[in-house]
Amino acid sequence: MMDRGRLEAFSDGVFAVAITLLALDLGVTGPEGGPLARQLVEHWPVFASYVVSFFTIGIIWVNHHALFSLMARLDRAQLFWNLLLLMFVVAIPFATSTLADYLRHGSRSATVAGLLYAGVMEGMSLSFTAIFVHALRAGLLSNPPPPEERRRAVLQFGLGAASYVVAMAAAFVSPILTLILAGILAGYYVFQHTPDGGDVESA
Amino acid sequence: MMDRGRLEAFSDGVFAVAITLLALDLGVTGPEGGPLARQLVEHWPVFASYVVSFFTIGIIWVNHHALFSLMARLDRAQLFWNLLLLMFVVAIPFATSTLADYLRHGSRSATVAGLLYAGVMEGMSLSFTAIFVHALRAGLLSNPPPPEERRRAVLQFGLGAASYVVAMAAAFVSPILTLILAGILAGYYVFQHTPDGGDVESA
Amino acid sequence: MMDRGRLEAFSDGVFAVAITLLALDLGVTGPEGGPLARQLVEHWPVFASYVVSFFTIGIIWVNHHALFSLMARLDRAQLFWNLLLLMFVVAIPFATSTLADYLRHGSRSATVAGLLYAGVMEGMSLSFTAIFVHALRAGLLSNPPPPEERRRAVLQFGLGAASYVVAMAAAFVSPILTLILAGILAGYYVFQHTPDGGDVESA
Amino acid sequence: MMDRGRLEAFSDGVFAVAITLLALDLGVTGPEGGPLARQLVEHWPVFASYVVSFFTIGIIWVNHHALFSLMARLDRAQLFWNLLLLMFVVAIPFATSTLADYLRHGSRSATVAGLLYAGVMEGMSLSFTAIFVHALRAGLLSNPPPPEERRRAVLQFGLGAASYVVAMAAAFVSPILTLILAGILAGYYVFQHTPDGGDVESA
Repeated sequence: MMDRGRLEAFSDGVFAVAITLLALDLGVTGPEGGPLARQLVEHWPVFASYVVSFFTIGIIWVNHHALFSLMARLDRAQLFWNLLLLMFVVAIPFATSTLADYLRHGSRSATVAGLLYAGVMEGMSLSFTAIFVHALRAGLLSNPPPPEERRRAVLQFGLGAASYVVAMAAAFVSPILTLILAGILAGYYVFQHTPDGGDVESA
Repeated sequence: MMDRGRLEAFSDGVFAVAITLLALDLGVTGPEGGPLARQLVEHWPVFASYVVSFFTIGIIWVNHHALFSLMARLDRAQLFWNLLLLMFVVAIPFATSTLADYLRHGSRSATVAGLLYAGVMEGMSLSFTAIFVHALRAGLLSNPPPPEERRRAVLQFGLGAASYVVAMAAAFVSPILTLILAGILAGYYVFQHTPDGGDVESA
Repeated sequence: MMDRGRLEAFSDGVFAVAITLLALDLGVTGPEGGPLARQLVEHWPVFASYVVSFFTIGIIWVNHHALFSLMARLDRAQLFWNLLLLMFVVAIPFATSTLADYLRHGSRSATVAGLLYAGVMEGMSLSFTAIFVHALRAGLLSNPPPPEERRRAVLQFGLGAASYVVAMAAAFVSPILTLILAGILAGYYVFQHTPDGGDVESA
Repeated sequence: MMDRGRLEAFSDGVFAVAITLLALDLGVTGPEGGPLARQLVEHWPVFASYVVSFFTIGIIWVNHHALFSLMARLDRAQLFWNLLLLMFVVAIPFATSTLADYLRHGSRSATVAGLLYAGVMEGMSLSFTAIFVHALRAGLLSNPPPPEERRRAVLQFGLGAASYVVAMAAAFVSPILTLILAGILAGYYVFQHTPDGGDVESA
């Protein structure tokens, strides 16, 4: 019904556009907003959240590829879970600019903005877990992992999802902490070894 | 004159950008617009129409692939019909943000916005039908379906087109109803079985 | 130095994004701008220029593919001409929204907007011709066409370039005429037969 | 863990979107801003910086492809360096529009805008160098170049990075000079011969 190649191409396109749209919110007030140097300093939440979200989307894309490369076939439900994941990915620029905006104005609503930001990440993390769990249950993987590795992988996904819950809770302490935790998570995933591990010869 | 692969790549690109541009209209007034939590609640039409349009574009993309994978060759007219389809797909973010905007302000023009929204979907649905009908008539399919299956497929396309006419009519009752109907249609198509059915081995 | 496949993939991406960005300028004033139906009618230049530009970009993409599929190899200069072409393609949404804006306000500057619009199309047309002429001169084509066909093809490209000069001149009479001429040209190219003609089996 | 093909597809997507987003900042004040011809003349920094940035991104894309086509495999660290490179590429439209904005208003902050512009280019240049150096050290290249060619290539990369430092320094003299230098650099790279040289048969 759907070959993997085209699902990956479409998903890659969505990831690429979403990661680039993040940059639309880079931007300062302009000449009428006072010295540019001061504006750049004052806009630090915009730049910090840009970097965190950029690497977060980048790493989801890497993991998306790693996961789908293990699948022998796809079914309708998997397409749905993939669309759900992409729906959260596409919402990241919105959550990012909202968080940056509220951090910059030191508004009391910044806590809600932190909740929104980590909440979108949580939705993304849960959709990703759903894709993996569905692949296991529906037998879509070409080489189903042995039980112990399976448990370990589900645990790892659960840990990611739990981390974003912690990041949501952190928003009540300080939404800046939410951003820091999301940054640490992205950094962790960049360098973490995945079960499917190992390099492959280039195609 | 045109190989299928590059038409699909271009179409995938357009689908991917269009689905991501939907998120440009996510966005609240910002710190000067009062508590964020209240703004998020008041912007419910923005989020609801985002979800409906996201899955609608997603599902058109899935069906687009399913349909083109059946074609053995393409001709100039098919390129035109495909461009027409994409023209409506690309207009969906505009129709979505207009509907959300008018729903949110409870304006009397919301009915026109509902008509616009379902009308763009109708244009998309009719272009899609045109692609299928042209493929049948010009003998572009690699395995032309038997007459009865053919009739069934045309009927199914016609049903989709008719449903959006109903969604247009519903705008006179309530544009929210239009959005709900469009959501039900997208949900139906996500889980519906298509004639070309079955999973395929990943390429 | 550069394989054709990746140049096409990059170009396809640029075409796909440029064609979708056209839709960013669809958009009305919103609830505070009076009845939506009246706004939609008053915004007719926005919709008309959207349709013309959409099909123009679509058809350049088709012709881009047809031309590059004839090339056996690429050189640095060809990459430059291709970037120049893409630079004009990417400027089309800007030229389109400027024309629509000035047509809508019936401003006296609409003539300049018409010149800008047809001028960007002219730049695109000339870059396209440059790609073809360079391919002939540098021997990049896999099957160099015989002299008479060669002359015919160059003539055809020259005709396209001349047509946009006419469209530029027409802006002094009426910028609406410029838009109509551009629309006729796009329509002509959609259904025109190209020298490389014929359908191909899908890859 | 990641095949080259999909990394290239994703990177191509990001390059394509970033290069197209440059055009979002083309745009004049509109009918209420006086004669269009005068507006177009006054907006010259917008158009000049658009051309320079367009060719800069275009040429990075060309070099990105040339470099990755030499790699036999990828590792996690290389994915990170690639994401870092893309993060700077995606920031170019922001740096471009800021520079154009400040040049146009003749603000005293234009020096800072010039620093920002050349600084983003510098970040991009350094990330690119990091990708090459890492590929050498981690043995990712399929045909590691001999020591002398290796030194020459690293020198060439270093020269690019040094050039952007010069462009940053030039901002203190005149930010227009920064733009001119960046333009010269892009032009130089378009026509420069790269070590991996030579044309290849199209795939």
